[in-house]
Amino acid sequence: MKQVALGIDIGGTDTKCGFVHKTGKVYCESSISTTTQGESFENYLNNLYNEVETARKNCPEELELVGIGVGAPNGNYFNGCIEFAPNLPWKGVIRIAQLMSEKWKLPATLTNDANAAALGEMLFGTAKGMKDFIVITLGTGVGSGIVIGGNMVYGHDGFAGELGHVIIKENGRDCGCGRKGCLEAYCSANGIRRTVFELLEQKNTPSVLRDISFNELTSAKIYEAAIEGDHIAREAFRYTGKILGRALADFVTFSSPEAIILFGGLAKSGELIRKPTEEEMENSMLHCFKNKVKVLLSSMDEGNVAVMGSAALAWHEKDKK
Amino acid sequence: MKQVALGIDIGGTDTKCGFVHKTGKVYCESSISTTTQGESFENYLNNLYNEVETARKNCPEELELVGIGVGAPNGNYFNGCIEFAPNLPWKGVIRIAQLMSEKWKLPATLTNDANAAALGEMLFGTAKGMKDFIVITLGTGVGSGIVIGGNMVYGHDGFAGELGHVIIKENGRDCGCGRKGCLEAYCSANGIRRTVFELLEQKNTPSVLRDISFNELTSAKIYEAAIEGDHIAREAFRYTGKILGRALADFVTFSSPEAIILFGGLAKSGELIRKPTEEEMENSMLHCFKNKVKVLLSSMDEGNVAVMGSAALAWHEKDKK
Repeated sequence: MKQVALGIDIGGTDTKCGFVHKTGKVYCESSISTTTQGESFENYLNNLYNEVETARKNCPEELELVGIGVGAPNGNYFNGCIEFAPNLPWKGVIRIAQLMSEKWKLPATLTNDANAAALGEMLFGTAKGMKDFIVITLGTGVGSGIVIGGNMVYGHDGFAGELGHVIIKENGRDCGCGRKGCLEAYCSANGIRRTVFELLEQKNTPSVLRDISFNELTSAKIYEAAIEGDHIAREAFRYTGKILGRALADFVTFSSPEAIILFGGLAKSGELIRKPTEEEMENSMLHCFKNKVKVLLSSMDEGNVAVMGSAALAWHEKDKK
Repeated sequence: MKQVALGIDIGGTDTKCGFVHKTGKVYCESSISTTTQGESFENYLNNLYNEVETARKNCPEELELVGIGVGAPNGNYFNGCIEFAPNLPWKGVIRIAQLMSEKWKLPATLTNDANAAALGEMLFGTAKGMKDFIVITLGTGVGSGIVIGGNMVYGHDGFAGELGHVIIKENGRDCGCGRKGCLEAYCSANGIRRTVFELLEQKNTPSVLRDISFNELTSAKIYEAAIEGDHIAREAFRYTGKILGRALADFVTFSSPEAIILFGGLAKSGELIRKPTEEEMENSMLHCFKNKVKVLLSSMDEGNVAVMGSAALAWHEKDKK
């Protein structure tokens, strides 16, 4: 009998789940659609329960569930609710943690996806053994999970760690949040696309990216061009790293972490993003922090990282007791 | 017999000490010069010990010491050392906490002055009962003490909470730290003086401040002029609050605190600084934080706040055990 935590990652399209042992081994992953169950959370939950329990029954190992961890956009740790999440099909306030706990008769805990990623790094990934670190997720948006003294920082209302919305340029680019100049408008997948277009406008340098429309351009295409030596694409990574590095230098003044871990789509570009980020962070940093803070890339497998992060939350809660 | 903690505040000129009861009542304060003992820390410590023990003997109440808390510039919580503090007479690394602990045969803990102030607010001041707050000290420099989940944030090396050195303007004013555009260059006592000079340069508005040289101008004089209705002085406070408010909006994305408490010389200007700070913070903040975070003024008595903060550290450590 293996003790495992059930990790559930609720995304806008799919809900992924899996059973995760304390060593990080994942058993019997599965998924259901988040959306096709209509707008009733009850239907969705029944479906999810059946899917999970079928997977457990069919698993070659006998699994004992110790708890449930749920990661979801806008998930609030303190009240266990998702409130008016723009990318999820359910309206109003959904008491996710309570409803799942009742369904499985097990403790269930909710947090947002960036915090789940940070807990995943701490239990299973690059931050293993660290007590003070920040995970920056460079995806469609820019998110963050902050760990201080081995504890996740939730703040007094559960909304701490919105570092994608630190304003890094006064009257800068429009951000999806309705304000201007947020880090997310520069260092997300969409941010680097905007940077490419700014460079195409400002420079005469030839580039394969001049043949691609804004809507067709992806961060993967910018990465491929950079690998091929395209100057605009390379400059876009340098610029993105520079902006990110300066922001990290400011974050360091707050919590003086041992490391900052880059995670998500853009982080898969590896040294192309990590190196200029670290260089600019070191250049910009206050003297007493220099040469102390590592900038690292996530070592988690993209395939099941969200499920592992959610399960890490369940393990972390269990260990606190 | 009253149980008290010994609070010691080591400043560049004087060392203040006093015995502080858990209710915040302070007994038998005294002080010695930090500097006239020459460069030997041993001489200084002997003098301090004699001063403290004489004060204790002469105190009308019988006092039982439970521990020692020390606040000092550059004081490091983790190793209990002051390392190369530019404003203190001793060279190199001084193992303050260990040496004091040996002298009194009691537990002794060290931190920097801004962290001590935050602990003072939590045990005895405006932050009583709060678990998530930030204290910003607006003095000669700008310092900060951050409390998350009831714990002081020290970071992995003890240097967390240097929010005066977040860069708020690219290529902005020279800062004492050797970089440009730090919050401290705008929102310290010296920062508002620089702002007055910028306004005197940019505007034709008449002002009593036009008769005062840079070296003669103090934040107290700017405050007096503002109270008398001087337009330049009032504008300087508004500008300072605006810069500070924007920075606070960024700090909130990190730890989502219940309140931010303003402390130190400039904070004594009361609403003149608090109001524009709060207004700009609310204007600048990400939607999910709006109308949730209070900007408050410290309620601590300036006379013995440093001693109380240092003693609060000793009480906080005792309660952790």
